[in-house]
Amino acid sequence: MKLIVFSVKGESKIGVVENDRVFDIHAGYKAYLESQGVTRVEERANALVPNDMNGLLEGGSETLELTQKTVKFIKEAGKKSNRELIYKQNEVTLEAPVQHPSKIVCVGHNYREHILEMGRDIPEVPVLFAKFENAVIGPEDDIPYTPITEKLDYEAEFAFVIGKKAKNVSEEEALDYVAGYTIVNDVSARDLQMRTLQWLQGKSLDGSAPMGPWLVTKDEVSDPDALNISLQVNGKEKQRSNTKELVFNVNRLLSFVSGIMTLKPGDVICTGTPGGVGAAQDPQEFLNDGDVITINVDQVGTLENTVRNV
Amino acid sequence: MKLIVFSVKGESKIGVVENDRVFDIHAGYKAYLESQGVTRVEERANALVPNDMNGLLEGGSETLELTQKTVKFIKEAGKKSNRELIYKQNEVTLEAPVQHPSKIVCVGHNYREHILEMGRDIPEVPVLFAKFENAVIGPEDDIPYTPITEKLDYEAEFAFVIGKKAKNVSEEEALDYVAGYTIVNDVSARDLQMRTLQWLQGKSLDGSAPMGPWLVTKDEVSDPDALNISLQVNGKEKQRSNTKELVFNVNRLLSFVSGIMTLKPGDVICTGTPGGVGAAQDPQEFLNDGDVITINVDQVGTLENTVRNV
Repeated sequence: MKLIVFSVKGESKIGVVENDRVFDIHAGYKAYLESQGVTRVEERANALVPNDMNGLLEGGSETLELTQKTVKFIKEAGKKSNRELIYKQNEVTLEAPVQHPSKIVCVGHNYREHILEMGRDIPEVPVLFAKFENAVIGPEDDIPYTPITEKLDYEAEFAFVIGKKAKNVSEEEALDYVAGYTIVNDVSARDLQMRTLQWLQGKSLDGSAPMGPWLVTKDEVSDPDALNISLQVNGKEKQRSNTKELVFNVNRLLSFVSGIMTLKPGDVICTGTPGGVGAAQDPQEFLNDGDVITINVDQVGTLENTVRNV
Repeated sequence: MKLIVFSVKGESKIGVVENDRVFDIHAGYKAYLESQGVTRVEERANALVPNDMNGLLEGGSETLELTQKTVKFIKEAGKKSNRELIYKQNEVTLEAPVQHPSKIVCVGHNYREHILEMGRDIPEVPVLFAKFENAVIGPEDDIPYTPITEKLDYEAEFAFVIGKKAKNVSEEEALDYVAGYTIVNDVSARDLQMRTLQWLQGKSLDGSAPMGPWLVTKDEVSDPDALNISLQVNGKEKQRSNTKELVFNVNRLLSFVSGIMTLKPGDVICTGTPGGVGAAQDPQEFLNDGDVITINVDQVGTLENTVRNV
């Protein structure tokens, strides 16, 4: 499934996208319950198929199965319901699939050729740094370009989203704890990033983590270690690699990070960026107002955002 | 006021401490409303004096005033209520005053003598790094010492808590956005912190941000730039300074950080640690099972936690 957060008529909802059709899952589950004649529909739906992504992920496999059944119900019976359950994708606004992750853990220096272009050694342990939830914006939002930086840069990243509480998880069992995958543009203000020893201030501008367009559940990604990833600026390719080039793959990262900190449903781990960032060009090329950044990841989708002066 | 989160009989509550007496604010406000004969008491209390700290802080000055009135009401009328509104402090467990900050922003290299002991230059801009909410534990919790590190260290920190949404705030107006102050022990695994360029993994172990014992509202701190801060390990003083030694004080930090990221009620900014950390001793001294770490900050209080092997 492609799980989304979408807004329509000012309300934020959880949905599933299929062939440009958006299914309202929470309303759909309520319609299903009504069709079964049960009581306390609102309370049951809030408990089992809640209308927020972290809650949905916390529900685990039980909730994901109910979500799938709800999609089936809506397809078969949706038009008979007096609720509005199906939208065309262009009638709604897609938001970031995870709006309030308690953690966004990023990995630096993880694609072999990006490490080389930055003039560094292959690390023996992952380099971890943070973004906070203020950075999260959706696939239809603009990337704000504010006067605080003169060196705004892109970083295409394949990201995974935690599906259940994870602490000291082995590499072998790691995928059990993954809900699915998404794309993050780890937008970086290089001047702020490099002016102190710690990168946080260059990684945490408001709107510096465009995310989406959806969370693809892990069953739809055949092999997370063999996905092409590429990034274009205004249609011109700047980054291209494959997740097989990751020094630390999804399994190793989940195991490593869960050994340090307890991960929660909705936490997002960004696996790092390939070679070709603007700061590594000769001469350096940074983003400008109006630039369109397009990231593609095989089997996940396309995330496209425009840079706007604000 | 000294705002606290406390638990009693398995329930988490918001309270105010005065002279070893704990006032249950949410229940007290409901009792007040009942005494006024109004309807929809539960809904009104959830809206105006909610039972969680982030919600309480989001209520701003209106909610803080109602909180003060509630304390007065409980003192005058509490025994006449059929609700349990007052506890002795030793009957309850104090929890971290902010349980789920969306951001914990830490500042490195901010006390002049700590900068010198670490052999660094006085920074021109604050060095920022992150902890996540998994690190937060309360004043009565133990600091977990896990085999992942052999170099667990303490850092006494004076911290401020955001009271209202802050973006691009000037130094002059900064204190308007502060709800109050608390103490954080920025527990650091030095081996993990230093094995990569970025400190995050050494700063984000579960339980590595003991916080408390309470949030002292800013009206009770006469001058945040003139507070003695000290730390003892097993009764022996290791750190002592005064917030007047901060390179970047509360006003400058709030202004600086809010220029980068939008701050929300409940966000915690740790202002950095004085000289005397274990890693800077000669020879180095790290924490061990059973060590008791006591941090005092003038006008704020005392935070004391014990290190425990887990």
